[in-house]
This record gives sequence, C-alpha cells and structure tokens, in this order.
Amino acid sequence: MSSTVGQVITCKAAVAWEAGKPLVIEQVEVAPPQKMEVRLKILFTSLCHTDVYFWEAKGQNPLFPRILGHEAGGIVESVGEGVTELAPGDHVLPVFTGECKECAHCKSEESNMCDLLRINTDRGVMINDGKSRFSKDGKPIYHFVGTSTFSEYTVVHVGCVAKINPLAPLDKVCVLSCGISTGFGATVNVAKPKKGSTVAVFGLGAVGLAAAEGARVSGASRIIGVDLNPNRFEQAKQFGVTEFVNPKDHNKPVQEVLAEMTNGGVDRSVECTGHIDAMISAFESVHDGWGVAVLVGVPHKDAVFKTHPTNFLNERTLKGTFFGNYKPRSDIPAVVEKYMNKDLELEKFITHHVPFSEINKAFDYMLKGESIRCIIRMEH
Amino acid sequence: MSSTVGQVITCKAAVAWEAGKPLVIEQVEVAPPQKMEVRLKILFTSLCHTDVYFWEAKGQNPLFPRILGHEAGGIVESVGEGVTELAPGDHVLPVFTGECKECAHCKSEESNMCDLLRINTDRGVMINDGKSRFSKDGKPIYHFVGTSTFSEYTVVHVGCVAKINPLAPLDKVCVLSCGISTGFGATVNVAKPKKGSTVAVFGLGAVGLAAAEGARVSGASRIIGVDLNPNRFEQAKQFGVTEFVNPKDHNKPVQEVLAEMTNGGVDRSVECTGHIDAMISAFESVHDGWGVAVLVGVPHKDAVFKTHPTNFLNERTLKGTFFGNYKPRSDIPAVVEKYMNKDLELEKFITHHVPFSEINKAFDYMLKGESIRCIIRMEH
Ligand SMILES: NC(=O)c1ccc[n+]([C@@H]2O[C@H](COP(=O)([O-])OP(=O)(O)OC[C@H]3O[C@@H](n4cnc5c(N)ncnc54)[C@H](O)[C@@H]3O)[C@@H](O)[C@H]2O)c1
Ligand SMILES: NC(=O)c1ccc[n+]([C@@H]2O[C@H](COP(=O)([O-])OP(=O)(O)OC[C@H]3O[C@@H](n4cnc5c(N)ncnc54)[C@H](O)[C@@H]3O)[C@@H](O)[C@H]2O)c1
Ligand SMILES: [Zn+2]
Ligand SMILES: [Zn+2]
Ligand SMILES: [Zn+2]
Ligand SMILES: [Zn+2]
Repeated sequence: MSSTVGQVITCKAAVAWEAGKPLVIEQVEVAPPQKMEVRLKILFTSLCHTDVYFWEAKGQNPLFPRILGHEAGGIVESVGEGVTELAPGDHVLPVFTGECKECAHCKSEESNMCDLLRINTDRGVMINDGKSRFSKDGKPIYHFVGTSTFSEYTVVHVGCVAKINPLAPLDKVCVLSCGISTGFGATVNVAKPKKGSTVAVFGLGAVGLAAAEGARVSGASRIIGVDLNPNRFEQAKQFGVTEFVNPKDHNKPVQEVLAEMTNGGVDRSVECTGHIDAMISAFESVHDGWGVAVLVGVPHKDAVFKTHPTNFLNERTLKGTFFGNYKPRSDIPAVVEKYMNKDLELEKFITHHVPFSEINKAFDYMLKGESIRCIIRMEH
Repeated sequence: MSSTVGQVITCKAAVAWEAGKPLVIEQVEVAPPQKMEVRLKILFTSLCHTDVYFWEAKGQNPLFPRILGHEAGGIVESVGEGVTELAPGDHVLPVFTGECKECAHCKSEESNMCDLLRINTDRGVMINDGKSRFSKDGKPIYHFVGTSTFSEYTVVHVGCVAKINPLAPLDKVCVLSCGISTGFGATVNVAKPKKGSTVAVFGLGAVGLAAAEGARVSGASRIIGVDLNPNRFEQAKQFGVTEFVNPKDHNKPVQEVLAEMTNGGVDRSVECTGHIDAMISAFESVHDGWGVAVLVGVPHKDAVFKTHPTNFLNERTLKGTFFGNYKPRSDIPAVVEKYMNKDLELEKFITHHVPFSEINKAFDYMLKGESIRCIIRMEH
C-alpha cells in the first residue's frame, strides 16, 4: 500500500481562479477519499470544450476558484469506505457522469442519467459531505463535474470511475472519458443511421469527428460535415467526412442548403457545437418522414430551442444525449476494448501534446480551433 | 354500371361559404373522376376538429367557398383512367393523406408522408389538373384535404382511398378514416409505451381518447388524461383513463403537476389538442432518460415550439405523427379488421348522430365539447 493512503496529498493542480484568466499551477492539498470515493493519480488529461465553457463562464454559472478537467486516464491511489469494485493500482477513466447501479435510470436500458451521479455543472463539492477535497492554504477550491482532472491527484465518486484494461495506453484512451465516447455513442447508440444513409455532423471538433467516425462505422454512404471553421475540413476527411458545408458560404439557412444537397434532408444529423442556431439547423435539416436529429452540444444556459411544431408533425424526431448514452461503468470498458481491437482509431483525434506546466497552451489551441484533442501529460 | 358514370352528378353538399358561418346545404355539380381519381358516394361522414379549424380559419389560411369533411365511409361510384385497384361498388374510407406507393416515403417503412399525396391544407383543387371537381352555377367550390366528404358525392385521388371489408358497418368504421386511427396509431405505432408504463394524454377529444385506447391496449398501468374541459373526464373512464388533471386546477405548470404525480415524469405523452402550450407541456412532462412525447394536434400556423435544449440533452425524445403513422391504403384495412375482431371498440367514440340536413349541429356539439364523434348520415 502506498504511504499516502489516508493522508492529505500535496500536489500540483491547475487552478482557475477567475473566469477567462489563465490557469495557475499551484500546490494544493487533496484530502483522502471518503465513503464511496476514490483518489486517483492522474497520468494524462485532455481538454474538452466543456472545460472552456465553464472557464469562460459566459453562458454558464461562474464558480471559482475551481479545478477544471474531465477527460483523463489514471490509476487508483486509494479507496474510501465501502468501495469494493476498485483497488489501488487499477487503471481507470474518470467520467463526468456516473452510474450508481441502483436508481431507475441505472436500471433502465435506455438511460444513463443516473439520479445520484448525473452531471451537475453547478455543484463544486462532493456529494457525501457537500465539501471539497481540494484546498490551498486552508481555503477550499471547487470541483468540476465530479472529476477535476487538471490535478496530479483528484477525488472522484466510485460511480464515476470506469475500470479499464490495464494494457490500454492511458495517453490514448483518456480521450474516451468524454468527447470521443460522446460523439461516437451519439451516432451509434442514439442516431443509429442505417447502412447507406446520409448523416450530417454539425461541428467538427473532437465530438463531431467522433460522431462522423460513428457514421462511418455504421456504413453511412454520405457524411456531410458542417462547420464555421474551414480549417476543420481537411482534417475531417480522415474521419470519413465526404462533403463539407460552411454556413458562412451561403446566404440562406444551412438547413436549406442541406435539403438541396440531399433531396429533402439528411437521414440523421448529430449536433456537436453547443450553439443553439446549429441545434435548430441540425433538427430542421433532417428529412421529414424518418429523419432523426441528435443534440450533443452543451448549450448556453439561456438558450431557447425554437421551431415550428409542424417540423415535428412531419415525422421528424429530436433526441438529445449525454455521453453518447453510455453508462460509464458498464459500457466504457468495452469501448476501450474496441480501441484495443482496432475497431476504433483514437490516434487521429490527438493532434497536440503539452506538459502539465503548459496547460494554458491547450486552451489556446482549442480557442484558435487548431486542435482536436491536446493531451496534457502530468509530471509526477 | 351506374348510369351516372362519366356524367356530372348533381347532389347535395354542405358548403362553407365564409369563415365561421354555418354551412349551407346546396345543390352542387360533381364532375366525373379524372386520371387516377375515383368518385365516391358518401354514406356517412363525421366531424373532426381539423374541419372546425379550417372552417373558423382563425389560425389557418382561409379558402372559401369550400366543401369540408374528411372522416367518412362510402362506396365507389366510378373510377377514372388508370385506376385498377378500385371498382364501382367497393367499400372505402377516404383519407386526408395518401399513398402513391412509389415515392421514397411510401417505400420507407417509417414514413407515411407520401410526396405526392400528403396532406396539403392549402390546396383546394385536384392535383391532376389543378382544378376543382365541385361547382355551383359554373363557379368552382374548393376541395378540402383531398376528401371533401360533406357532400353526397366527392372525387378523391385513388391513393387517398382505403378499400375495406364490405361487411364492415360504414356508420361505425367511418371514424377510422381520421381521428381514431390518428390517436390509436400515435400511441401504438409511435409512442410505443411498454407494458406497465405511465402514459399522459393531453386532450380528451376523439383523437386523445383513441390515444388512451392505444395505451390501454399496450398494457399501460397508469393513463393520465389532461384536459381543460372537466366534462371530458367522466367519459374518458370508459377509455381506460385512470387519472385526470385539469391544468386550470393548479397554479403551476401542468408538467410540474405530472412530475410530482409520477416521480419525475411520465414514460410517454401524446398531445392531442393542437394547442402549442399543451405541446410544450406534453414534451416537458416526460421523464428524462427515456421519456418520449408525440405531437398529434394540428397547430396554429404561427405557433412556435419553445423549450430549453437541455430538456432534449437530458435524453427526452420528441416526435410527431400524421395519421398515427398509418399508410392509408396498406394499413387501414387491417385497422378495420381489428374492429371486426373486437380488438378495437368504436361504438364508445360515437356519441351523437345527425342527418346531413342538420350538419351544423355537429359543429355545435364539438364547439361545446359535448361530442366525441357525431356521425352525419347522408340522405341519398
Ligand atoms: N452531451 C455531452 O455529453 C457532451 C460531452 C462532451 C462535449 N459536449 C459538447 O459538445 C460540443 C463539442 O465539443 P468539442 O470538444 O468537439 O468542441 P470544439 O470546439 O472542438 O468543436 C466545436 C466545433 O463546432 C463549430 N461550430 C461552432 N458553432 C457552429 C455553428 N453554428 N455551426 C457549425 N459549426 C459550429 C466550431 O467551429 C468547432 O469546430 C461542445 O458543446 C461540448 O460542450 C457534450
Ligand atoms: N396529426 C393528425 O394526423 C391529426 C388527425 C386528426 C386530428 N388531428 C388534430 O388532433 C387534435 C384533436 O382532435 P379532436 O378531434 O380530438 O379534437 P377535440 O376538440 O374533440 O378535442 C381536443 C381536446 O383538447 C382539449 N384542450 C384544448 N386545449 C388544451 C390544453 N391546452 N390542455 C389540455 N387540453 C386541451 C379540449 O378541451 C378538447 O377536449 C386537433 O388539433 C386535430 O386537428 C390531427
Ligand atoms: Zn467533455
Ligand atoms: Zn444511478
Ligand atoms: Zn381529422
Ligand atoms: Zn408516395
């Protein structure tokens, strides 16, 4: 057993002190895990747009100081009371939404919205005692979506931890703990395109490219990428995207452009931008009679989805998903195996690497639209 | 062969001359059927709320003079060029939406939104020549949704005619040509509640009661009826509705009332009112994680469906349907057989009868919320 068990660990964490200000690497204290919690040593973490949104806190409730981060791979350092499924040394992916295995959602085949552990972006504390496990100079620092992986050590509820194959390279599979599983699952578990169908993907960031990868794996014959950033298009070809539409290149709504390209609409669309206009367009782009649109992006808190109800009556379906409808503990280990069996390629999603000390560069890459995923290597 | 074949028929029709003014029984001329058309002798017709909406023309484009009516049973009088599937004497139900059997929709398993013959409420003419088959004193009278059954004779495209069992009583099965099939199909074909689930039905008119009947047949354990008219509740018990909510009895949104009654939301909801507030409530009433809401009501033309996109991201599904997703020619004969085999009861939907000369009474019964369906008996 490690000598740190039961002790407060002092380690480096990247603290967001204020909205939109560069993170600061600080020495922080990480308390031991309590009942049903585990403390993880993070080896690799990556940056997802959801981190950026809550760091900017423009469309989201501000909560600072906070340790962001939710895509990561690590190793269990110690476990709290009542934890029997995990032991120190296990290789794991922390996940921003959990699985208690006991609530109606966990027992439903359709839902992964666990009553106890579903994502809560406004909560900055652990559910066991309503307190933070992080502090600096005795003052608490808030958690983020139960994961806070921008820290060498973090404390996570056991229900938010997927135990994976220890042979899986954590510097690759860490991206499965949010974005890639989210996009891939949105297509294969929710949109479910039939072989030969036409799929539009709105937003060609990591999530959207993973959605496109899901369409390719499902045998879609046309995959239309929609993005405002033309730099995304060259990259997207690697992910099976066959055609590109930049809404800025047209002086009519993009849903009309897609309808013209596809004789009335796409069979499936997957929205991976978080922008309400793209959500509405994604829905209105699907073919009447059978089209299914799936929302994935995290919207501005005041966003309103508006459409004429006739768009529904004309037999279009609109769904949304968190985390690609995967149950983190039950389903993610098998997604890791898909990578191990080469059924799912992850390398192409990873465009940048930085050491933890340069984590702010990862924000720059994302804000400039240069990166798909930037892997941040912890430096224990 | 009848002596009327190929001739103009002069007969009685109830003409809507102006929005909201009582229909007037007039002698009209009905031209012979053209290519791919059939002329029907209507024996029974019934009144659906959609007729009332287009008669009132408050939320819909006005088009007058017009012969309304779209729920009916009749007999083929004569057929136009190219019609091979129907012959004089066949018992039929005309349907407001058609099935050409050749377009992408007709070939899709999921859609019944035929490209050629789907409902078009703004068109008042036949598609073959863009003209009306009805006239009075040489001036055309507009058709309504391709059926115009408030006439002793009418001309309909062959794709909008379901040939049914000649033993089926037309004074009962006529209600299957719109409302009852619409509501029943919305539940069994689209919402698809599982056994033991909780279903909310918004609007307890004929369509909503048929949706409730679909829930009962599907084995729902709780069927919650929501209506602004408390007179509907007693009647609705016959249709398996187990609980009632009148939004007027509460000073919070009805979706909150339903969430409290059901520990977070209903499993399925079916909206059968045509009112946008009920559509939004029906959607927001379904449980996150697995809830499915289905829109059936015909909305005001300027209605806007508004909700926070998070309601979708929390894994709710919203769909809409026309005519219960039934394909009129392929599927409706089997629904008639369900009635013949006593798997579906129609008598309880029929609360009133009037002779054709008193058709305006049927409007009164519906406007006062007294009737479910009023059968109008033609008096040839
Ligand atoms: N539902 C979930 O479980 C879940 C999980 C992870 C991420 N997300 C969300 O998914 C979204 C995508 O994440 P990402 O990491 O891929 O972000 P990203 O920034 O890498 O990619 C987003 C892309 O969308 C494009 N875009 C923005 N507005 C657009 C518009 N109106 N039309 C077309 N394209 C537009 C941008 O140019 C960008 O290329 C974010 O909203 C993120 O918060 C949701
Ligand atoms: N989609 C289709 O294919 C299709 C086919 C037929 C009818 N319809 C539509 O279905 C709807 C119902 O038709 P119907 O013939 O049963 O009408 P109806 O008038 O008999 O019944 C409608 C019921 O809804 C109730 N209602 C109105 N506003 C409400 C609200 N905000 N909340 C709760 N209840 C409310 C009314 O009190 C009434 O009891 C209409 O909009 C009609 O146009 C659609
Ligand atoms: Zn993420
Ligand atoms: Zn749970
Ligand atoms: Zn109707
Ligand atoms: Zn067709």
